Amino acid sequence: MNNSIVRFILGHVLLIEAAFLLLPCLIAAIYGENEGLWYLLTAALCGLLGFLMILRKPKNNIFYLKEGCVATALSWIFLSFFGALPFLFSGEIPSFTDALFETISGFTTTGASILSDVEALSHCSLFWRSFTHWIGGMGVLVFLLAIIPLSGGSNINLMRAESPGPSVGKLVPKVKYTARILYLIYLGMTIVEILLLLIGKMPLFDALTISFGTAGTGGFSIKNDSMMSYSPYLQWVVTIFMILFGINFNAYYLILYKNIKKAFGMEEVRCYIAIILVAIGIIFFHILPMSSGTFDALTKSAFQVGSIITTTGYATADFDLWPQTCRTVLVLLMFIGACAGSTGGGIKVSRIVVLMKSVIKELNSYIHPKSIKKINLDKKPIEHEVVRSINVFFITFMLLFSTSVLIVSFEGQDLVTTFTAVIAAFNNIGPGLAKVGPTQNFGFLTPLTKYVLMFDMLAGRLELFPLLILFHPAIWKDLLTQKMGRKSRNKSS
Amino acid sequence: MNNSIVRFILGHVLLIEAAFLLLPCLIAAIYGENEGLWYLLTAALCGLLGFLMILRKPKNNIFYLKEGCVATALSWIFLSFFGALPFLFSGEIPSFTDALFETISGFTTTGASILSDVEALSHCSLFWRSFTHWIGGMGVLVFLLAIIPLSGGSNINLMRAESPGPSVGKLVPKVKYTARILYLIYLGMTIVEILLLLIGKMPLFDALTISFGTAGTGGFSIKNDSMMSYSPYLQWVVTIFMILFGINFNAYYLILYKNIKKAFGMEEVRCYIAIILVAIGIIFFHILPMSSGTFDALTKSAFQVGSIITTTGYATADFDLWPQTCRTVLVLLMFIGACAGSTGGGIKVSRIVVLMKSVIKELNSYIHPKSIKKINLDKKPIEHEVVRSINVFFITFMLLFSTSVLIVSFEGQDLVTTFTAVIAAFNNIGPGLAKVGPTQNFGFLTPLTKYVLMFDMLAGRLELFPLLILFHPAIWKDLLTQKMGRKSRNKSS
Repeated sequence: MNNSIVRFILGHVLLIEAAFLLLPCLIAAIYGENEGLWYLLTAALCGLLGFLMILRKPKNNIFYLKEGCVATALSWIFLSFFGALPFLFSGEIPSFTDALFETISGFTTTGASILSDVEALSHCSLFWRSFTHWIGGMGVLVFLLAIIPLSGGSNINLMRAESPGPSVGKLVPKVKYTARILYLIYLGMTIVEILLLLIGKMPLFDALTISFGTAGTGGFSIKNDSMMSYSPYLQWVVTIFMILFGINFNAYYLILYKNIKKAFGMEEVRCYIAIILVAIGIIFFHILPMSSGTFDALTKSAFQVGSIITTTGYATADFDLWPQTCRTVLVLLMFIGACAGSTGGGIKVSRIVVLMKSVIKELNSYIHPKSIKKINLDKKPIEHEVVRSINVFFITFMLLFSTSVLIVSFEGQDLVTTFTAVIAAFNNIGPGLAKVGPTQNFGFLTPLTKYVLMFDMLAGRLELFPLLILFHPAIWKDLLTQKMGRKSRNKSS
Repeated sequence: MNNSIVRFILGHVLLIEAAFLLLPCLIAAIYGENEGLWYLLTAALCGLLGFLMILRKPKNNIFYLKEGCVATALSWIFLSFFGALPFLFSGEIPSFTDALFETISGFTTTGASILSDVEALSHCSLFWRSFTHWIGGMGVLVFLLAIIPLSGGSNINLMRAESPGPSVGKLVPKVKYTARILYLIYLGMTIVEILLLLIGKMPLFDALTISFGTAGTGGFSIKNDSMMSYSPYLQWVVTIFMILFGINFNAYYLILYKNIKKAFGMEEVRCYIAIILVAIGIIFFHILPMSSGTFDALTKSAFQVGSIITTTGYATADFDLWPQTCRTVLVLLMFIGACAGSTGGGIKVSRIVVLMKSVIKELNSYIHPKSIKKINLDKKPIEHEVVRSINVFFITFMLLFSTSVLIVSFEGQDLVTTFTAVIAAFNNIGPGLAKVGPTQNFGFLTPLTKYVLMFDMLAGRLELFPLLILFHPAIWKDLLTQKMGRKSRNKSS
């Protein structure tokens, strides 16, 4: 393994985190909060460490999928570790496990919190929490690729490891420009949301943090009641932007550079919209009797459906108290998730579409055993290899899910809490049902459960294999070789 | 499609059912019950219809997997329809939907009942209910193959469609002898269980019906409290036989004809035993404080684990009241199910093993992208095609499961009831949790839910595709062609 390139990338990631950590310092300065000093200290620490790690340039810039995955997984672990320090140092989250949980939940855009009183946090910490969503949504390595000229044509392996979806398509031939275009669309849409929220008379600080959480489909709110106290206008703006950020960004690229027709013709986007409309319809009719009017029922059902399918996790209603049918529909939406190539989590709509098509194909093979038709998506055949990897993804997803449920069950919580806590973490949603419902938090769980859920959040965000690979003995052997390599230089391979 | 061979097979199945229906008549005669007449009438009806259907021999004996699946699916639907008639005619189950539910639950070895008072049934009906488990366990078409000389080498397609497991292996070159060996082992083990139960002073009628339910891994009991009132000895006999009937019958064939070492070396059997031991261990420690002593806790945990993993569904304790960890473990066992090639349901241990191995293989491919190692089971490589079909099976399973949950959720029951009702039906277990727990029944559900669960029971027993194929437009077109064909003979293809 090319260990030096992994170190080099990690160093850059830490430098970027150092730069990002200066933003909460600025907020602290504005609000005159002492907590800002801890952010400054952490930024200095990250900066120093990052600087030391990039001092020696790697001899060889080529890396493969293996290095891409290891670099990505380690980047996310480093990011989360250092990102958690200000919470811990400032004493706002006094337990290390809790601080790490909150930060991983932030970066992975989950939005599950261990805090019972969010409003007690300082402004700079509230800002940092929400900003981690924004960084995690599009990905820190995609950001890295957009700003730093990593030579060599193997950068796509970093993007492949970090970006959600079964097959990562470059929008333009160069990875650097693809990353830039993605971040520009992301930034542009975030700014538009902020402006629309400001027009609705939301305070600037709220508009910033809520927009970061929407853009990254994260879900950390700055209020204890999540989004319940905002006006219907503001709730609708957030609803629409949650749904927009859950759409495959390729669609926006198509709209910007090529043609709108093709964007709306994307099968995944059509299915995504269809599922949203059906779910809103079902929930609307079920909650109509308990709402104050048609508009209220529509606002609430649209917000919650948008929030859950995009795996954001904001709430304007305690959906844990809704009729059972609605709760079941929401649980099913939790698994589906948003589109591939969006900032949302879950299994992803395109995977579900391909999985369904492979079932139909199998059924056809019983009738026409000799047929060798490929599965089509957007009228183009999908390679068998992609179909196979989607199948394996789904299987891995369910096996990891079951294993997590088994371990979390030792907590002794009821079935609904156990299942939905894992679902909410694994699909990067945030709230589940029952004791981890939208008005509850994850603070009461035991450390073992919290670490399992942290693993699930990272596994869900990085789409399983880039994280799982860290547990492979061969990788450990390689990483160990690196340590040895410091003593006898020439051994690194 | 070769429609005439499908008709011919269906005719034979009805003749076999007619013969089987004479057994409850005999029981009715012994106990002097009038209900026996309805069994006699139904037997006559089946016999007549069956006779008419086999009058004209098919010109062409060759059939493919397609015909095998259609014949199997239709056989099971016919069996269930006619098997339900005595319940309906006698007025013991006055609703057609309920009578059909009970019969499908019987043949598919599910054991989910709509009856709140089982003990009110006549002896002949109790016998028939349990006997449907015994027929369904090994399969009626396997029985057909064992006794009727269907010429042509394509009989394996019938066996493939009816037998559980990812790849149906013939024990001996001839399908007929394979079927005979399977039924002889099945019959032999059932007789041994009956004898052991009689030794424990169980009444003969109880011993017969309980053994039928154990052998088929069904779960219909003749007592309202399932198996709770029987002595620990009897409970242990049933526990051991449930677990034995959940083992791949190839293992018994190996023990009988070749070598014991190879039988115990089967990876699937080892995993199955390991899972059982771990599950018993976890549950034992959790229920120890609420049991009257170590032996009681061990008896109860072993019985329930054996009953759930083999998808039998007998109960000696209300496990719905057990600690949450135990309930979660039982739900996970429900999905795993028994071994392939046994009479049990669920996903099957061998599939889980292969699924896990394909995850590990995928992980390895990230590290050694050029490796083309195949997955091994029992030290033999598995063909890619088999792995692929296991993947697709699992995907189909989860998609059908989710769809069923969605439809059943309109019932408005709590999440645990909704989920476990579908799990219990789909995996052919019987009891679920909460409102469909071991001391409850399925009678209160709406007809729509009952029909969804009936579909799930059949889909689970026939392992999805043989039933799903009936919903394929091409098959309907073929079946319609058959009807036309009666007017213009030569069109059948």
